[in-house]
Amino acid sequence: MNFTGTNILSVKQLDRDAINDIFGVADRMEPYAHRRKRTKVLEGAILGNLFFEPSTRTRVSFGCAFNLLGGMVRETVGLASSSLSKGESLYDTARVLSSYSDVIAMRHPDSFSVAEFAKGSRVPVINGGDGANEHPTQALLDLYTIEKELKGRGQGIDGMHIAMVGDLKHGRTVHSLAKLLRLYKDIRFTLVSPPELAMPDEVLSILDDAGHQIVITDRLEGSLSQADICYLTRIQEERFPSLEDARQYRGRFRLNQSIYTQHAKSNTVIMHPLPRDSRAEANELDNDLNEHPSLAIFRQADNGVLIRMALFALTLGVDHLLEKYDAPVLWHSTKASL
Amino acid sequence: MNFTGTNILSVKQLDRDAINDIFGVADRMEPYAHRRKRTKVLEGAILGNLFFEPSTRTRVSFGCAFNLLGGMVRETVGLASSSLSKGESLYDTARVLSSYSDVIAMRHPDSFSVAEFAKGSRVPVINGGDGANEHPTQALLDLYTIEKELKGRGQGIDGMHIAMVGDLKHGRTVHSLAKLLRLYKDIRFTLVSPPELAMPDEVLSILDDAGHQIVITDRLEGSLSQADICYLTRIQEERFPSLEDARQYRGRFRLNQSIYTQHAKSNTVIMHPLPRDSRAEANELDNDLNEHPSLAIFRQADNGVLIRMALFALTLGVDHLLEKYDAPVLWHSTKASL
Amino acid sequence: MNFTGTNILSVKQLDRDAINDIFGVADRMEPYAHRRKRTKVLEGAILGNLFFEPSTRTRVSFGCAFNLLGGMVRETVGLASSSLSKGESLYDTARVLSSYSDVIAMRHPDSFSVAEFAKGSRVPVINGGDGANEHPTQALLDLYTIEKELKGRGQGIDGMHIAMVGDLKHGRTVHSLAKLLRLYKDIRFTLVSPPELAMPDEVLSILDDAGHQIVITDRLEGSLSQADICYLTRIQEERFPSLEDARQYRGRFRLNQSIYTQHAKSNTVIMHPLPRDSRAEANELDNDLNEHPSLAIFRQADNGVLIRMALFALTLGVDHLLEKYDAPVLWHSTKASL
Repeated sequence: MNFTGTNILSVKQLDRDAINDIFGVADRMEPYAHRRKRTKVLEGAILGNLFFEPSTRTRVSFGCAFNLLGGMVRETVGLASSSLSKGESLYDTARVLSSYSDVIAMRHPDSFSVAEFAKGSRVPVINGGDGANEHPTQALLDLYTIEKELKGRGQGIDGMHIAMVGDLKHGRTVHSLAKLLRLYKDIRFTLVSPPELAMPDEVLSILDDAGHQIVITDRLEGSLSQADICYLTRIQEERFPSLEDARQYRGRFRLNQSIYTQHAKSNTVIMHPLPRDSRAEANELDNDLNEHPSLAIFRQADNGVLIRMALFALTLGVDHLLEKYDAPVLWHSTKASL
Repeated sequence: MNFTGTNILSVKQLDRDAINDIFGVADRMEPYAHRRKRTKVLEGAILGNLFFEPSTRTRVSFGCAFNLLGGMVRETVGLASSSLSKGESLYDTARVLSSYSDVIAMRHPDSFSVAEFAKGSRVPVINGGDGANEHPTQALLDLYTIEKELKGRGQGIDGMHIAMVGDLKHGRTVHSLAKLLRLYKDIRFTLVSPPELAMPDEVLSILDDAGHQIVITDRLEGSLSQADICYLTRIQEERFPSLEDARQYRGRFRLNQSIYTQHAKSNTVIMHPLPRDSRAEANELDNDLNEHPSLAIFRQADNGVLIRMALFALTLGVDHLLEKYDAPVLWHSTKASL
Repeated sequence: MNFTGTNILSVKQLDRDAINDIFGVADRMEPYAHRRKRTKVLEGAILGNLFFEPSTRTRVSFGCAFNLLGGMVRETVGLASSSLSKGESLYDTARVLSSYSDVIAMRHPDSFSVAEFAKGSRVPVINGGDGANEHPTQALLDLYTIEKELKGRGQGIDGMHIAMVGDLKHGRTVHSLAKLLRLYKDIRFTLVSPPELAMPDEVLSILDDAGHQIVITDRLEGSLSQADICYLTRIQEERFPSLEDARQYRGRFRLNQSIYTQHAKSNTVIMHPLPRDSRAEANELDNDLNEHPSLAIFRQADNGVLIRMALFALTLGVDHLLEKYDAPVLWHSTKASL
């Protein structure tokens, strides 16, 4: 797939070759993200970072990824100050705002709004999350993390066993990740949730069509003994009819050191899209696992920068120029040794 | 006029020579805005982009213009987080914030506040809109667009025919544009609005003094047959006593393909300061004209970047250095062919 | 003290040598801040500017300081859009956000939150104000201003006489400054406030332990005749139980030209952390002193940029490289002559 000048709107547009291309470029981004080198390949380029729905970490991750390639960032946060609230169409907004940058990363509360925006845009648009619909860069960074974590032990995504745990009904990240996994072979899924928060049928049938094996359960303990990956999710309180509705599920599936030691494989990789709710009553993933080598949640965040750098480099067609425009890092970086 | 180190506060400070200077520099900005080249002439310079009244497009347009010259942007949006709300004077705010940048672009809800701020500032200040008073960069980009659109057909601003349509009472953009047009000769104005939303007497007498010809009407259809330019405006709902007051005028003057074909000249240029209200009940300018070659509304936005780049280059005295500090554009740009 | 890779969380971690090191580097920053030169020493580096409590001037001062060293800034303002509101711990927030930058400047409404954040951060953290606790860069810029102002007349901090005036109970800046002054010798403090807004005992005993001389009074007029420095503060309305409680103190200690001329030494330096309340009923420091050569309040703001540049250069270990990566300033700067 030639990414130059294209939009990245949905995981559906990606096949296995495209994913491998992205991951290959992401691998080459690590020395830049860790400040062992820096590149000026996008010096002079401008990212329009449009977060019509606020989000600190995804927004900053996109912005930082662009800066790490040498580019500059113009940012817009929130709907209030936007002309969308004065009745402007997404087409007009896109035509105007796309004249201010070379590429756009966009989050918006409405499903399919990013694709609609992309129709009016004159520069490539990367979907940073469009409501309940998709968040393709999160799915890619999750998949990239899985691949990297398993590679160390000589394993691949084909044939792995993944447990997905928690609010599987509302969790956009598990839906997107599951859809990406349709491209791989012989995966065993253990889906752990209360029956009311089960994985939607649409996703189940995609996994079924791909020939994957699915076990559905509401017990965490018995589900981890063979899992290579345990992907935990937060109860998405904001998507429930009321807070009381949501809170009854709080703390239903907790993972901590004692449960992990007793029930998981010795090296089950723990993943979580973050933020995790660290209040005592919720505490879906305990802090006592913070130093555990199999806790990959912060590596996920690190990988997010690499994936977004790769997508910018590919859509702007500079992936082949990367190492040619390196420059020295003059400052002391606490990251160089990570 | 020597712009170096000066403030750009009002269209009143500009004469025809000054305008021609700005437009001449703006012309030279096009290859940079279209990414055919880039310049490092402001590398290391800082823009203080102070939007005490939020505005997405003007704010990003200023920021992008500065980035395109190689500079960096420090941004402030909204009054809430500002010390102005703790009783600080504009003079103090200006003294302090101007120590953080090389030039300031500023929007503020109060008339004449930008000029008051400029008194305390130690760097040049460009007015990005001060309440009901002025928005000089919009007036300049509108005039620049008119000149460019007419030039293609061998015409100039002198002697043209312009129809201004809609809320001519509250529309700051038509007031400022009309004031700039006092500097030109033999212009015919057709002013189309409900009588209650008519062009203020102050503006009319400026046009009169300049010897221009004025026709006042409340019918759109008959007004376009000889117009070179049709400048539409939005009903400025936020400036009416109540929303109901404003909404009675919604959809009063609609331009769409069928009306245009029937009533306009074959090449009447359609302009609008944007945002336009695309909700069915308002719809002052229909989407069915989106691909029409005479629709200049998105070219206006593009020209806004060029005008703002020109003003930065002039106030910071680097216009004569422009082509000397060019650098290559390494990435693929979907704009290079525009 | 070796600053490379360290956090700057509290004035308590600094001794006199450390302060002298910072001030020495700050002195070398002046030509860059005044645009007589520029440096590319942090080109490619990213500052995470995290203002979980909004603040225009401190935020922009940090951002501008980083830009002046050649670096880029990724900014976050407010708590609302942050995951902290979804129950995320400061540790998690720090682990994730610190993967997006090379150094972090952070303000937060809660005392000690910045230190807690720093535990999870993988890059150095500079405290930009943590609630009622500390604001070390303000204390440093105040002390630096005092040193510079007195140096001109052959005086030093040791042996000086400083009057602190106003809301000494809630004023975080006077607390921090007083704590820094524990490192110096033979200082005379005149503390002017209503008894209810007196300097806290904790601070008094620090000054006492340091062997300084303290006079406590509620009359401004008699207190200035021997003061080298008069440090005024705003009534911190937001920290009172009610606005009425606060407003009774409004305008209690006013300094204007006539009072200064009558009661102060001929060259008492006037300082204020800003913003000052310029409304008639408050007016703690009158505008009629704006052009007075002893009014140092705007020089304080200028010095804030120098101090923050110095801290970034020191924590990132580039202070010794400063002059080696200079580049020309191409634009006309109204600051070069300041």
